[in-house]
Amino acid sequence: MVGVSEDGDRREFRDLASPERAREVLASLDLDPEPENVPLADARGRVLAERVDAALDVPGFDRASMDGYAVVAEDTFDADEVDPVRLDVVGAVHAGEEPSVAVEPGSAVEVSTGAVVPPGADAVVKVEETTEADGGDAVEVRTSVAPGDAVMLAGADIAAGSRALGPGTELTAREIGLLSALGVDEVPVRGTPTVGIVSTGDELVRPGESLDSAAGQIHDVNSYAIAAAVEEAGGDPVLYPHAGDDYDEMERLLVEGAEECDLVLSSGSTSASAVDVIYRVVEERGDLLLHGVAVKPGKPMLVGEIGGAAYVGLPGYPVSALTIFRAFVAPLVREAAGLDEPRTAVVSGEMAVQERYGEGRQRLLPAGLVADGDGDLLVYPVDKGSGATTSLVDADGTVTVPADTAYLAAGESVDVTLFSPDVRPPRVLAVGEDDPLFSRVLDDVARPRFLPVGTREGLRRLREGVPDVAVVAGPETPDGDTVDLGGWTRDWGLVVPDGNPDGVDGLGDLVDRDLRLVNRDAGSGLRRSFDDAVEALADERATSRRELTDAIDGYGLTTKAHESPARKVAAGEADAGLGLRATAASLGLGFVPLGTQPVDVVAAPERAEKPGVRDLADALADCGRLAASLDGIEPQ
Amino acid sequence: MVGVSEDGDRREFRDLASPERAREVLASLDLDPEPENVPLADARGRVLAERVDAALDVPGFDRASMDGYAVVAEDTFDADEVDPVRLDVVGAVHAGEEPSVAVEPGSAVEVSTGAVVPPGADAVVKVEETTEADGGDAVEVRTSVAPGDAVMLAGADIAAGSRALGPGTELTAREIGLLSALGVDEVPVRGTPTVGIVSTGDELVRPGESLDSAAGQIHDVNSYAIAAAVEEAGGDPVLYPHAGDDYDEMERLLVEGAEECDLVLSSGSTSASAVDVIYRVVEERGDLLLHGVAVKPGKPMLVGEIGGAAYVGLPGYPVSALTIFRAFVAPLVREAAGLDEPRTAVVSGEMAVQERYGEGRQRLLPAGLVADGDGDLLVYPVDKGSGATTSLVDADGTVTVPADTAYLAAGESVDVTLFSPDVRPPRVLAVGEDDPLFSRVLDDVARPRFLPVGTREGLRRLREGVPDVAVVAGPETPDGDTVDLGGWTRDWGLVVPDGNPDGVDGLGDLVDRDLRLVNRDAGSGLRRSFDDAVEALADERATSRRELTDAIDGYGLTTKAHESPARKVAAGEADAGLGLRATAASLGLGFVPLGTQPVDVVAAPERAEKPGVRDLADALADCGRLAASLDGIEPQ
Repeated sequence: MVGVSEDGDRREFRDLASPERAREVLASLDLDPEPENVPLADARGRVLAERVDAALDVPGFDRASMDGYAVVAEDTFDADEVDPVRLDVVGAVHAGEEPSVAVEPGSAVEVSTGAVVPPGADAVVKVEETTEADGGDAVEVRTSVAPGDAVMLAGADIAAGSRALGPGTELTAREIGLLSALGVDEVPVRGTPTVGIVSTGDELVRPGESLDSAAGQIHDVNSYAIAAAVEEAGGDPVLYPHAGDDYDEMERLLVEGAEECDLVLSSGSTSASAVDVIYRVVEERGDLLLHGVAVKPGKPMLVGEIGGAAYVGLPGYPVSALTIFRAFVAPLVREAAGLDEPRTAVVSGEMAVQERYGEGRQRLLPAGLVADGDGDLLVYPVDKGSGATTSLVDADGTVTVPADTAYLAAGESVDVTLFSPDVRPPRVLAVGEDDPLFSRVLDDVARPRFLPVGTREGLRRLREGVPDVAVVAGPETPDGDTVDLGGWTRDWGLVVPDGNPDGVDGLGDLVDRDLRLVNRDAGSGLRRSFDDAVEALADERATSRRELTDAIDGYGLTTKAHESPARKVAAGEADAGLGLRATAASLGLGFVPLGTQPVDVVAAPERAEKPGVRDLADALADCGRLAASLDGIEPQ
Repeated sequence: MVGVSEDGDRREFRDLASPERAREVLASLDLDPEPENVPLADARGRVLAERVDAALDVPGFDRASMDGYAVVAEDTFDADEVDPVRLDVVGAVHAGEEPSVAVEPGSAVEVSTGAVVPPGADAVVKVEETTEADGGDAVEVRTSVAPGDAVMLAGADIAAGSRALGPGTELTAREIGLLSALGVDEVPVRGTPTVGIVSTGDELVRPGESLDSAAGQIHDVNSYAIAAAVEEAGGDPVLYPHAGDDYDEMERLLVEGAEECDLVLSSGSTSASAVDVIYRVVEERGDLLLHGVAVKPGKPMLVGEIGGAAYVGLPGYPVSALTIFRAFVAPLVREAAGLDEPRTAVVSGEMAVQERYGEGRQRLLPAGLVADGDGDLLVYPVDKGSGATTSLVDADGTVTVPADTAYLAAGESVDVTLFSPDVRPPRVLAVGEDDPLFSRVLDDVARPRFLPVGTREGLRRLREGVPDVAVVAGPETPDGDTVDLGGWTRDWGLVVPDGNPDGVDGLGDLVDRDLRLVNRDAGSGLRRSFDDAVEALADERATSRRELTDAIDGYGLTTKAHESPARKVAAGEADAGLGLRATAASLGLGFVPLGTQPVDVVAAPERAEKPGVRDLADALADCGRLAASLDGIEPQ
């Protein structure tokens, strides 16, 4: 088992390329697709491949720009309100009609906006400055007009032969409008680079297919996430079937991808042997140009060519893969498509906390964003381990930390490259105890982020000054100034199988009988209440808390998520789980109540007036309806 | 002919609604489409219709996060470099395999990253901290590990039952990644509002179809521009055939659109009678809720309902239609689609010049953007008349000017709502004389904007401080400080039919013979050189300039665009046109040289170091190759 893995590589890359060198090598790859012609209706978002000059005059005729009368301007030079000029009306022209009469001196033709100005006329008097006479056979003009007044001359908007749009122009609604005016219905645009994605790893299963977790199967995350990122960069993703570690299969897929696409990406498993197989395929069927980059994550990045196509091997973990794609590959795809990086792709903010760093390679640090009370953006590191897919949504982008940086100081200004140009930071950042009512309340708030870190860690983070809000459950209470946004109580106790087949009656049964418990972790408010109850029982029995907990089978078997103990019970893996009445009811399980605990949502005082926090407070004020649908939860 | 037109309405709207009232009425319309399920691969850019909770634990098993050995942590508590612990290797598990052995105290199982941690083990020692022994039958562990080290417990990433993504979440690459991890392959998303577009006007012709200009036909601009703007707002446009002014046809199209779409827009012609017909259809087949809004442009806006669909009538001129769509309709479409206004949709800048305004209604002023020498955005009004389609690309968006504003002062800070969220201001703004070489040079510059206003107006604007660069041709030269970016000379003279059938020999022939000329406008450098030549001929003949110009048929027939005189010759409408040798050559016409004039590209000194200006200077320095392909143009 020799190979390369994201964070524990046993193969030494003696010559990791610098990120700058990697970009040079990547820039040397040719993935420019052929230009193509697309119908105007499909041209939005595309980029002009060549200049478009006007092939015709717009307008194509001298055009009335008002409703009124086409006249010889000179006829009106003496006209005014007191002494109007009378002209014979010899006809009328509406938009879309060819004039059937000409205007001679002394005469006028009625015209509508957009109509052809008849021959002989050199101006239009607008209807408001005229009075009909002789039942429409004549008109009195009450103002003087100059030649050209209220007439748009042929070609005055844009003349045949003029430059209309240059190559490289991205086509938005306004350019589509101009092309329409020019009569262009097929638009020469740059081709869309096609990007093949080959996921690797025997353990991968496509979303929608069932998993065999016992066999270590996981859903393929990178294929779809990278495909979406390819689209965001202006490319056209092509998903290939998974490749396992088999050389022949991998070779077949990579070569097929290289024949059909401008760029092939491999991505997926963190399996070392899969990376090794790819390495060999690229060396044997193409050119391996670069192997390993001094950037974290991304050390195992491969760059090469297979056939005429460019090839990049991305790291396996989703956050790493998306980060490296955004930092190194998206610019190539955009350039091939002729698109600029959207202005929204990078935002600036201040580090909310210090972040130490001591490694000798550039780091792309996953970071979350939150606005402070003044609306300024704060940036905080997100590090749940690079294997965590939830980091994808807990972080908003990455901060580039140079290799020689010892730490980023709190308050230091940094740029965050967003995971997608369309990523928008949360409007409210809440942390703390997971709770079914709070989860429903969040549905009524725009762009919230909630990190279920438990009550204790939630309060710690609130003190640290990063989140706006903490959700606090159980006996623990905030020790500093906070603003109360709302609260409720919840029944907690033991979740047991439906019908309580073991006849569990209370905490004493866990101590005294052979029942297997699943507990919650020590930082949760649920666990604090449970431990208080154990303490009380120890007092009652005049024994030590430790004595009792040692007697509870599974007391040390803790879970981070609030439904997990109940789900273990539902799966038949435990006899009782620490949990809520609401959870038991929603999963169709039995419930043995042990108590009721308060849940409070508190805000940092300086964030209390932040719009997202106000929205949350409003939603909390209105949560009675939601609480009614949950068993054992009562608004305070 | 009673009706409503954009700028000269004869029907009085006695009760124009305020823009605020119009927004209220629009907000009361229901155009929410039904939610739908889409495959994960098509979900990017869509908006979640409901909350997605995790249905399974991720990972679904205790997962090795390093290559190494799964062990009982307690076995390693005494291990260090000096005194390693020796464990029996009883098997191996790779990613995607079900463990076939358990780990007992004293034993270890080799694991790869991503593999299932076998039963009995509670930690993984990474391979770098171990030494193989007994030919692989045993391993020496050189460090102590704690329970849980290098293991991601089942559900530690996200646990079954946890809130994953809330309703209203816009799906970008990262959310697609998380949904993949959760095994979700069909995503419940908000529906895409369908927006029917009915163009009105007998004179409209679809792009790609040939125009009968003599009959006043024009290409339909609004259908495609508004369709693109609908897409930009997250809607799905449906184009209907043009409707003329016929009541039955209009009724049929609007009712059909209302049956098939969530919202119907009418747009197109400025014809007063078409608007009148629509008005009657909406009143008779639906509800007309609002007729006329106190906003410029947009006075003739209609709001109503037809059947169950919302209806909005847009003004006819393209810039007006797109402006009103962006300001009033796009927010409805976005809200129905569940999308936020992109952050890029509004930019701030300073007014570059004063803009007077005296009307009693809110104005949405078309405005262009240009960065000054410090990179700060300047905003300048663009008013080519509301019928001009080129305003679409000459302006970048609109500034909202309140009804009670007398003027916007130069230097005043204003917000510009861009025509499209993807609009980017030009990197270099050039004005002045149109020239075929300069037009080609612009092809080599990213995002330029050139306004062909002629030499005189170009120099005036450069002095005014708005553009970066002026193109100056002929005898006129800049009168202040400017930085020279490059220049060339061009042969000018009379463009005549191919083969010069009239045997035109020089300027004297225009005076002495019965030849019809097409001239250029007085602000162009070409005309200045021509007038100097007329002056010289007058001196030579000892007569007055006026005497000669009176004798030239067509001297007063001027055109704004530099190819227009030549094209009139090509069309047989004139015997000679003032123009360039290069134009004659490119159109296959004859040429009678009258002189050679310099063309100089000059920059405002404070803009000379602006990146876009530097790019233009680089392209100019390299323009010899381009000049070689143009007749009669010589680099200086």
